[in-house]
Amino acid sequence: MFDKMLNQLGPWLKGEGPQNDIVISSRIRLARNISGFPFISKATELDRQRIEEAVYRAVTNVHEKDDLFEIDLEPLTQLQCQMLVERQLISREIAETQGPRAVYIASDESYSIMVNEEDHIRMHAMTSGLDLYKVWERINALDDHLENYIPYAFSNDLGYLTACPTNVGTGMRVSVMMHLPALSIAQEIDKVFRGLQKLNLAVRGIYGEGSQALGEFYQISNQVTLGRSEMELIEQVQGIVERIVQYERKAREALLEANEDALLDKASRALGILQKARTMSSEEAMHLLSTLRLAVNMKLLDTPTIPLINELLLFTQPAHLQQLSGSELSPPNRDFSRAQYLRKRLLEISDS
Amino acid sequence: MFDKMLNQLGPWLKGEGPQNDIVISSRIRLARNISGFPFISKATELDRQRIEEAVYRAVTNVHEKDDLFEIDLEPLTQLQCQMLVERQLISREIAETQGPRAVYIASDESYSIMVNEEDHIRMHAMTSGLDLYKVWERINALDDHLENYIPYAFSNDLGYLTACPTNVGTGMRVSVMMHLPALSIAQEIDKVFRGLQKLNLAVRGIYGEGSQALGEFYQISNQVTLGRSEMELIEQVQGIVERIVQYERKAREALLEANEDALLDKASRALGILQKARTMSSEEAMHLLSTLRLAVNMKLLDTPTIPLINELLLFTQPAHLQQLSGSELSPPNRDFSRAQYLRKRLLEISDS
Repeated sequence: MFDKMLNQLGPWLKGEGPQNDIVISSRIRLARNISGFPFISKATELDRQRIEEAVYRAVTNVHEKDDLFEIDLEPLTQLQCQMLVERQLISREIAETQGPRAVYIASDESYSIMVNEEDHIRMHAMTSGLDLYKVWERINALDDHLENYIPYAFSNDLGYLTACPTNVGTGMRVSVMMHLPALSIAQEIDKVFRGLQKLNLAVRGIYGEGSQALGEFYQISNQVTLGRSEMELIEQVQGIVERIVQYERKAREALLEANEDALLDKASRALGILQKARTMSSEEAMHLLSTLRLAVNMKLLDTPTIPLINELLLFTQPAHLQQLSGSELSPPNRDFSRAQYLRKRLLEISDS
Repeated sequence: MFDKMLNQLGPWLKGEGPQNDIVISSRIRLARNISGFPFISKATELDRQRIEEAVYRAVTNVHEKDDLFEIDLEPLTQLQCQMLVERQLISREIAETQGPRAVYIASDESYSIMVNEEDHIRMHAMTSGLDLYKVWERINALDDHLENYIPYAFSNDLGYLTACPTNVGTGMRVSVMMHLPALSIAQEIDKVFRGLQKLNLAVRGIYGEGSQALGEFYQISNQVTLGRSEMELIEQVQGIVERIVQYERKAREALLEANEDALLDKASRALGILQKARTMSSEEAMHLLSTLRLAVNMKLLDTPTIPLINELLLFTQPAHLQQLSGSELSPPNRDFSRAQYLRKRLLEISDS
């Protein structure tokens, strides 16, 4: 599985789908718990094993249909777990805890099911671009399927019961990863984010809760899960993301009009540095790749292609880098290895 | 002449000669005046014409031997004058004044004779690397030759008489252009310069008096011309430059030991930026080329070669750039044109 992953990009990085110049990916997560078991914080090791078995039985049919891989997370190295985090297939939380826990991953990485995360079951589906309805169809079908085999903890008053009260109700988090470099350059991004907070939407960096926003990539998601239907939540996020897409597009047009030369210069220099540097932090790589992504989407540069930029964004993350090099690397060696990888992949690119 | 210059490098940029990794070039200038004429500040236009004629007659024999070109500076455009300044064939002062004035330039640019600068005659000879004795031989022979035809203003007490008292005596300025990036990085350069001041040596930027030191290129020259023989002055400068060469070499060794990776990274990035940028100031170009020059001389990079770096240093100067492009350019267009020239010349360089 891990070797195979080095040869493919998850669906959220394909650079396809509606508004893909601004929206990287759309994701929906559902949190579910199994009736009759305590929540994870109170669960014994035996409970957790039995939860794993219950999900295993339920998933078997899906597995046959969808080429679903089961990965037992307990024996994995930290590096392997981190690699799944970087691909957004598991959460940082499940990667960093101990005890019996597992993940089922669709071979095309379009969805995954975590077992024994904060809740018994957390399933994600994702796609490239802004297409929450497609993702919802996928995750809803999966949820319905599992519900045929698993008695979910559910209250007629509250909806789905979850370990953390913030997830009670739909158990749903709708999140959209956006690339907003022009709003950042125009210094309008804080204004946009203050508006989102008033609407109870959260803004996070590319790697979820607590992660810093790097390279102007932002995840926007709902915080409220209770008192609204799934469709209402999706429509709210969809509507707001469409508005932000419009703002970003206007900011890009204004930027192009006022500063086309400066923008092309900045992006060309970014490419030159990526092609030549001998050592590079993950943060700098993301920042430079973000600059390139903007320039390519604005047709200022032809190369590298968006899928290649996405690939570089993913494969220069620490765990992918180490998996590629076949060994654990100290942070300085990671920076050398990252620069080497970027040089190799960008060698053929010329914008003369 | 100007078109020919676009296809050649002056001898001071060949990257040859002793200590050429640190010493760019050695130059000696002699100031002379013709007996019976007032100094330039008091000279009439007629005086200046007659001075030109006197030098013309004296120079004729040299001309036959050495393929010496006469250039009348009066009808030249500012751009053409500036180009001669950038090649160190005339001074900024003679470029910027008015009235009858001329320069004789050896076709290999190894020496030049200015007529009607601050003094009636100012002759320079120059070579690549640290080789003041060779330059002295050249300029001394030229001086002897002219003296056969021209009655120099000379006092038995003071020596050669010059317009400015600081040049009286030998009328000689010995100057050596050095590249001292390691001493700059090690922050020892100010200490070195304070030492030079105590010894009555001047430190200037690459384009003479008042010009800022850019890219860690420095001209070191004597300030005293009186009370010492030519040989004493040359030996003093030669000795001190050799000491500074040793300091710089030690600083480079220390740098290599402590920071080889960082140095290679910095130089590789400089190359990437030079190969890709879309707009670049003269200052930035000199700074990046200085970084490359250090790395190539320290064998961290194979390319670009030192002669190519020297060529780029010269041809990215404003007047050369405009001569190359065949038209006058506004400062922003110069920056575009500079970046375009650098991209073109560095396109083939790869350090994979």
